[in-house]
Parts: sequence; C-alpha cells; structure tokens
Amino acid sequence: MAYLQGIAASNGIAIAKAYRLIEPDLSFSRQSVENPDKEIERFRAALEQSKAELAQIRDMARESLGEDKAAIFEAHLLVLSDPELVNPIEDRIKGEKVNAEFALNETAGMFISMFEQMDNEYMKERAADIRDVTKRVLARLLGVQLPNPSMIAEEVIIVAEDLTPSDTAQLNRQFVKGFTTDIGGRTSHSAIMARSMEIPAVVGTRTSTDEINNGDTVVVDGLKGEVHINPTPELIQAYKQVKADYEAQKAEWAKLINEKTVTADGHEIEIGANIGTPMDLKGAIENGAEAVGLYRTEFLYMGRDQMPTEEEQFEAYKAVLEGMEGKPVVVRTLDIGGDKELPYLNLPKEMNPFLGYRAIRLCLDQEGIFRTQLRALLRASSYGNLKIMFPMIATLDEFRKAKGILEEERAKLEEEGATVSGRIEVGIMVEIPSTAVLADQFAKEVDFFSIGTNDLIQYTMAADRMNERVSYLYQPYNPAILRLVKMVIDAAHAEGKWAGMCGEMAGDVMAIPLLVGLGLDEFSMSATSILRARSLMKKLSKSEMEELARKALSLGTVDEVIQSVKNATDL
Amino acid sequence: MAYLQGIAASNGIAIAKAYRLIEPDLSFSRQSVENPDKEIERFRAALEQSKAELAQIRDMARESLGEDKAAIFEAHLLVLSDPELVNPIEDRIKGEKVNAEFALNETAGMFISMFEQMDNEYMKERAADIRDVTKRVLARLLGVQLPNPSMIAEEVIIVAEDLTPSDTAQLNRQFVKGFTTDIGGRTSHSAIMARSMEIPAVVGTRTSTDEINNGDTVVVDGLKGEVHINPTPELIQAYKQVKADYEAQKAEWAKLINEKTVTADGHEIEIGANIGTPMDLKGAIENGAEAVGLYRTEFLYMGRDQMPTEEEQFEAYKAVLEGMEGKPVVVRTLDIGGDKELPYLNLPKEMNPFLGYRAIRLCLDQEGIFRTQLRALLRASSYGNLKIMFPMIATLDEFRKAKGILEEERAKLEEEGATVSGRIEVGIMVEIPSTAVLADQFAKEVDFFSIGTNDLIQYTMAADRMNERVSYLYQPYNPAILRLVKMVIDAAHAEGKWAGMCGEMAGDVMAIPLLVGLGLDEFSMSATSILRARSLMKKLSKSEMEELARKALSLGTVDEVIQSVKNATDL
Repeated sequence: MAYLQGIAASNGIAIAKAYRLIEPDLSFSRQSVENPDKEIERFRAALEQSKAELAQIRDMARESLGEDKAAIFEAHLLVLSDPELVNPIEDRIKGEKVNAEFALNETAGMFISMFEQMDNEYMKERAADIRDVTKRVLARLLGVQLPNPSMIAEEVIIVAEDLTPSDTAQLNRQFVKGFTTDIGGRTSHSAIMARSMEIPAVVGTRTSTDEINNGDTVVVDGLKGEVHINPTPELIQAYKQVKADYEAQKAEWAKLINEKTVTADGHEIEIGANIGTPMDLKGAIENGAEAVGLYRTEFLYMGRDQMPTEEEQFEAYKAVLEGMEGKPVVVRTLDIGGDKELPYLNLPKEMNPFLGYRAIRLCLDQEGIFRTQLRALLRASSYGNLKIMFPMIATLDEFRKAKGILEEERAKLEEEGATVSGRIEVGIMVEIPSTAVLADQFAKEVDFFSIGTNDLIQYTMAADRMNERVSYLYQPYNPAILRLVKMVIDAAHAEGKWAGMCGEMAGDVMAIPLLVGLGLDEFSMSATSILRARSLMKKLSKSEMEELARKALSLGTVDEVIQSVKNATDL
Repeated sequence: MAYLQGIAASNGIAIAKAYRLIEPDLSFSRQSVENPDKEIERFRAALEQSKAELAQIRDMARESLGEDKAAIFEAHLLVLSDPELVNPIEDRIKGEKVNAEFALNETAGMFISMFEQMDNEYMKERAADIRDVTKRVLARLLGVQLPNPSMIAEEVIIVAEDLTPSDTAQLNRQFVKGFTTDIGGRTSHSAIMARSMEIPAVVGTRTSTDEINNGDTVVVDGLKGEVHINPTPELIQAYKQVKADYEAQKAEWAKLINEKTVTADGHEIEIGANIGTPMDLKGAIENGAEAVGLYRTEFLYMGRDQMPTEEEQFEAYKAVLEGMEGKPVVVRTLDIGGDKELPYLNLPKEMNPFLGYRAIRLCLDQEGIFRTQLRALLRASSYGNLKIMFPMIATLDEFRKAKGILEEERAKLEEEGATVSGRIEVGIMVEIPSTAVLADQFAKEVDFFSIGTNDLIQYTMAADRMNERVSYLYQPYNPAILRLVKMVIDAAHAEGKWAGMCGEMAGDVMAIPLLVGLGLDEFSMSATSILRARSLMKKLSKSEMEELARKALSLGTVDEVIQSVKNATDL
C-alpha cells in the first residue's frame, strides 16, 4: 500500500484497477545470431501475433469508435503484409546474421526516412504507419506489452505520464473511471479533459507511472489530490464513505440547478459552462449552467485530416445554440497553435509555441479558415443568443481587423439572403497582459471581455503553465493578477459593458470571493464546478467581498492574499 | 545586382566580399557500387583530404584563437585516424557493396548512438566529435564545401541564416566587417553581437542565404537595413560617401564623449553601456558611457566545459569595476536558460524555454552556482561602485530569497575577514509583467529598477521576439508597454529610488523622447548608441516630453504613438 500526493484536477472519488497507458521501453542492441533461420522464424511469429492483435483492435474500434478510426488499423495491417517491407528484413537477418529487432528497425528506419523526405502528405502518413507497426512488432519481439487503449473493456483508472488529445480520443469513456498522471497541473489537457468527462483525476503526482502496476487497485481522490495504491480494505471502505458523502453533497448542490446565482446581499451573477463540443451541453444543463461562457471550437478541427466544412461547423454551432434555448452562448473562434496542433495545417515547429503563431494571429494570417468559421457562426446566429469572442487579441489593430472581416462576411451573407441575427455581441478574450493594461481603450470598441486566466497568468508571470519546474510561479492569487483583473472589470463597467472570466480561476473556490469583490459579472467554468460555485456565492456578501478585494490589491504576496481570503470567509 | 530589405540591427556601412556561413546540403542515397575497391580508394582520399584540412585549421586556431580551441581539432584528427572507426567503414563498403557515403554514415551513426546512450559526459563528447568529422568527410565525398569560419583571413561580410554564440566564438573579429542574416530581429543574438563588435549588420532579410553567393560583393547598410548584392560601381561610390558621412557624423558625436547628458531644459540623465565581457569596457569608455548599466555575466559561463570558479569571476568583476574608475557598474547575476544554454548544466529540453527554468529561477534552485557568483561579486565590490541586479524576478518572494542569500554570503565573507563594500545597491530587472504591475510593492524593498524591455515586451505581448511570424507584435511603442514603464518609474520615485532601462528600447531614437518624458533616470544601451542618444537628449525639453508622454499613454495603437512622437519632435 502506497500513497502519492498530486494536484486535484477533477472532483470526485474513483476506485478501480490500474491501466498503464505508457510507452514501454523498446530499446535493444545489435546482436549476432548463429542460426538466422531460427531468427527469421521468431520474426515471423511476432509478425503473425501483431497481425492478429491488429485485427482484433480494428474490430473493436469499428464497434466502439466508428469506421474511420478502424481504417487506421486496417492500414497498419496492410503494411505488415507488404513483402516490400518484410522481405528485406528477412534478407538482412540472413545476410548480416543479426537479430530480428535490429534488422526490423534498420529496414523500417530506411523506409521511414525515405518516405518522410518525400515532401508528400500521403507518403508522410505511410512513414507514420510504418513507425507504428514497427513499434508493435518490436514489442512482440522483446516480449513487452504495448498499451492498447481502444481495447479497454472493463472499469479502469488510467495511469500515464501525461495524456495527449490523441490518447484521450482512443479511450472508451464508458470504462474510464479516473486518471492519474505524473505531470501536468490544473490547466493541462488531461485535467481539462477529466473535468469535461466528469471523472475524478489527480495530475502532477510525479511518480504514478513508477509506483503503479497494471491491475493494482487504485483510489483516485480528486477532491484532495491523493492517489492510494493497493489500499487496505479499511481505507477502501473509508473512501466508499467519502464517495457517498461527496455524492450526497452533490445531491444537495443539485437542488440549486434551477436557482439564480444571487449573493447573500442580493447581487446577481451569471454562471456559465465551458464546453468543447455539442456533446458537453448535456452536462452543462444538468449542472445548472445559465449560459455557455466559453465554447472552445478547436475540437471541431482536431482529430481529423482536413478542415471542417462551413456546413459541419454550422450544424455544430446551431446544435449548441438550440440546445441552450435562448440562453447566451459565447463562441470562441479557432484557438489553435500553442500546445494544440493541427497536423493538416503543416505549421512550422516553433521555439516557444505559447508565444507564437496561434489563435487570432493564425486566423488573421490565413483568412480563409477564419472566414469559413465566421460564416458558419453568422448563419447559426438566428438559432439562439450568439456572442462571438476572438482569442489571443494583443492589440486594438487585431481586434479591428477581425471585426472588419466579420462585418464583411455578414454583409455577404445578407446579400445572399441568409438570416443573420442583428444582436450578436462581439467581444474578446483578455489573456495577454497588453490587453488587460489597455482595457480602457478596448472597452470603447468591444461588447464584452472574457478574461482567460490560464494564459493571462502564464504570460504575466512568464511561466509556462505546463512546465513543472516553474509551476511555483503559476499564481492565480498573485496581487499582480488581481490588479490586471480589476483593470479589465473597471474598464468594462466604465463603458457599460460586461466582464466575465472563462479560465480555471473562475471555478476556483479560493478565487471566487475575490472575483465577486472585484465585480466580475460572469463566471464560466467546468460544468461540474458550477453548483459548488453557486452554493458558495449565495453565502457571500458582495459588499464584504469588495472590502476583501480592496485589501488584496494592496498586498505583496500570494500567501498574504490567501490569508486575507481565509480571514474574510470561512474557507 | 540585387537588393534586400531587412532590419537595421547595427549602425554603419560595410562593403566587402560575402562569406556564407551555412550548413551545406549533405544528403545522399544508398547506392550499390560495382567496384568496392575503387570506392574504398575514394573514401581514403576523402579521409586524407579531411585530415589535411583539419591539420591546417588546427594550426590556424592555435595562432588566432588559442591552444584550447585548437585542441578540439586535434581531437577530430585523432578520430579520423582511429582504425576502430575506419576499418568497419571499409568492411561495409566491401561487404555490402555500397557507396562510401552510406557506409560512413551508417557506421558512424552506430558509434554515435552507442556513445550517446552511455550516459557518460566523456563518451557523449566523443559522439559529438564523430558527428563533426563524419560531416567533414561526407562533404569531401559529396564534393561540397563546408564553411570553416576559423579560417577566414580576409575582410568579409558574413552571410548566414542566423548566427549562434558558438558561430561567433569562432570568428576572427579582425576580418569580419559586417553581417547579414535571414532571420532575427533587433534583439536577436546576432544583432546584439554585431553592436557589441561595432560592425554594421542587417538581420531578418529572409533570403540573404538564397541570394548571395560566396565572393559576391555586398554592401551592408546598417543604417537603413538594406543589403545590396554586386552593386554597380556608382552605388559603391555612393555608399563610400554615405560611409564617410556617417563617420563624419560619428566624429561630431565624438565631441560629446566627456560631456554630461543634460536635456535642453537642464534635466540631468545618466547614460550607461551594456557590456558582455571586460573586453567591452574599452568601447564603452570610448563612447562616453557614464556607467555600466548592464554587465551580462552569462558570457563568463558560456563557450566552456564547466562553471567558472569564484576566482575567475572575481577577476572579471574586479577588472570591470576598476576599469570604470568609481563610476556605477550594474552587474546582472547569471541569466542562463531561455535561448542561452549551458551544455554542462544538462538542463532538460523545455517546450517554451522563454517561459521556463532560467535566470533567477535556476539560481534559486541551484544555490551553489548562485552563491559562488555572489561571493565573487561581494569580494570585488571594494574595487569600485558595484550594484547587483537580479534578472527575471517575478515575485516578491523571489527577491527576498535572493537578497537573503546575498546577505548570508556577505556575513560569511566578513567573518572570513574579506573586505566587502558597505554601499552596494541591490536591485532587480523589471522584465516580467507581474513585476511591473506590482512595482509599488517592490519599490519598498529594492534599491533600484532596471527595465529589461526585450523580455518585458515579449511577455506583455505574448510574442516570442525571435519568431518572425509574430514579429509584428513585438511593439516597444505599444501604449500598454509605455503604461507599464510608467508604473515602474512612478513606483521607484514614490520611494525615492531610481529607475533605469537596459533593454534595446533605451537606445531607440523614437523611444527616447517618450522615456525622457516618463521620467526615466538612467538609460543603458549598446556603447555605439550612446553618443547619438546623448546628442538627441541635449536637444529635447523634458517638460515638453512629459506632455508628449502623457498624451501617448492615452492612445490606443502604435501608429498613433509614433505619429505623436513625430509631431512633438523633429524625428
């Protein structure tokens, strides 16, 4: 029985068997073999086993993930049956009297580098296929187990270094009960994904993958950020109680689903949900969201081979607008780049992707992509209460240019006879320090602000939020952050506009009293955080929180701010 | 005759022959050979030519660069004479009947990956040596020319994609008259290096390496940012005139060397120089520096195999302090990481190095390195007017911790009987937005601020200053930047402290009127910019510039700010 402390990334308790989603060690050395024929036999056996495995994966993928995911595995099967790959490997084993691992790796490596150099998208994909199947056969030869996430068919807790979007795309949500990862923080992809899947998660444990073996019983305590490995029956029993209590608490919160969010002294606030796809709407509504405060459209563009068409986008936006039945829906235009890549865009590698070519920068440069999205949004606007939001705006010039393009597309659509809503608010994310500092100028031209704290904090502190070594600087409660938030809110109010927040900070229990005090109008958060936030806000007095905020702005350090929140509330 | 527009990175005009410092294309394919013996002969010839070339380079390096640089080439010669490398290559040519390029690359590749996997510093260096010599022999086999910058023995203009610190370390300054590069901006390494070497440079031309051939006559116009390739005799004549005029202007400025910097309405300002090594002192003094406003100590740590000792550092700091004869010397403690690596520190690769583990973050984590530097500084302090500055401070906690360590080392030294000055000011770089926003809190504890605009701008705008694709966002004149600068200056003055600036912006002619108006006390810049800045400041009225600054702070865009500067001055 062992215990790990990590970062609580998604609320709740999960108890299940561990499933390690980890690249195994596939290293080997070149070895001479005395009997090449026997070595060829060993190679052929590994090949056949790999084919059988792939066929099984393909069949399961076809059932649970759909035909297009299955097609990938079909392509891998074809590679393994290709004599142009297989024969040279066997020739090399025989000719050079080397072990199968070496022969496979050398031969495949030659094909991979040949295809990769061809500067042809199709051939590059073939190179990726060969790389994948080589790994699979190599694992068989070395007798190590490759993880096959699409094959999971029982309740598990995923144990990984980190989870990428492509990992999570392969997971069958029905069976994944919790996550624990070595790296990451509250804003890493795996954390956001866990909250969106509403499953408990603990990230940043550093050693989960070292300490946890396949099949270990694991408790993921997403409330406190703890992971227990092979706990005693007593501890399991205790956790079943915590789980029950948490569910009781949730049931209590659930009573607030249809209530308005009003502070103890009668000040009304709006709580919205952050969503990634129309599928997330259900969770948002079930958790009492009064709005969609952030619809991250990039998921429409990810996990596929080409841009989504205007029609596909239109359908998705329409579904969300209709689903919210007239409640506000803030749609963020494409925020790609940074840690989110689109292979088919062929973006160049950057030294500092977080400070690079992404979001509105890319959209203003590759206008075609942007115009298609705006047309889809404008066409969908008549199905609900649409607000359009541009991400990563750093200068007034960028906002003016983006808004100009939107107006051009509106004019074109109207000329074509399409119905476009006449009351679409157009706002911006405030996630770059320059924009917060100049918020008074922006407030004259935008309809609203939504503060994106995940990025705003990392730029203001100059600390990559994904980098463990500087995670101590990712400080939502730093007085400098609070001052920037205040600048934005005050600037909005001076021009009669509203200011919201859609970063993780908006759902953070310690931050909420400060944000209420600073006068934030709208909070948008993971659906699962909404009811807890509403329950907390109903207990807070806005005028007392204003006093708290005033004090916090004059402090120097995070510790002082946290202490002042604790003194002013019963948190 | 062709013409390229780039970014003027270092003033002056240079006219000379082009020298391309570019990795040539060394690609090849595997080919079967009919006569392996002949192929082996071809390989041996390339080997012998490479050895002769290396011997020549070694001899030149010994003369012009010193014994330790020559030792590298001696090591390479040993590798090429090692039968354990050479014999397997020849065996492979014979056994597999393949071309020498393929046999060389495969065999060397095997050794390289073997040595690299050994997790032993010495073996890893051997891997690097093999990689280097493989490239050299491969170039001979393919009949392409490798650049040998240490062999340059006539006046040249360096043409490169970009210049790394290790490239410039190999250049003989006597013969390099100018630079032109494809990428980079005013704050890239090559630009800073050019200004420190006082040679004209144009960076970010995008296509210099495509357009310029070895031996072409090139004019580098570092005043306007233009590059002319094989210009007409008339143009060369005209440029000789521009060069003469510029030198006459410089002679005019030179009269200001011993004058104080006083505005037209009698306000005194201090202009210091940014230096990298004690060798740069000469240029600083010859250009009339009133102080060293930034001594970048990281060059002491670069281009070597291990940390500099306390004694080595002490000697360097003492040399600078003595050289400045009692004038202020602001020494920045180690700012490594980001785009500046130290191989012997074995720092992990980071996704966004500019937002990562660098400067004070590293020093507070690896205290041994930091304490050694502080001891050397404290011991040197009695030789002049030392001010110590910590880079990349993001929080008050970091400053307090760094200052605490400094005080501990002072106490230890005093106990050991060393003489330590009693009047060392301790300040910080303001280059992270959080620190600018919270400057009033910092001002209570620091002795001074020096605004590092290169980083402050890139973080405030969230735009990597080395990334061409977002260079349009690197905006020194953005009103948001001016507001942050104002916060810092006002905060310093409210506590009776001084505020300086040591980023590129301090030497920027368009920015100087604004900075004078904002009340900046000290400007530190490339030595070659000092006299022009002094000449400009003497013409400005501080009270008029205050009016200009007030106005600029209320504007929304860069264009408006530039226009207001033009309206208020004759720039």
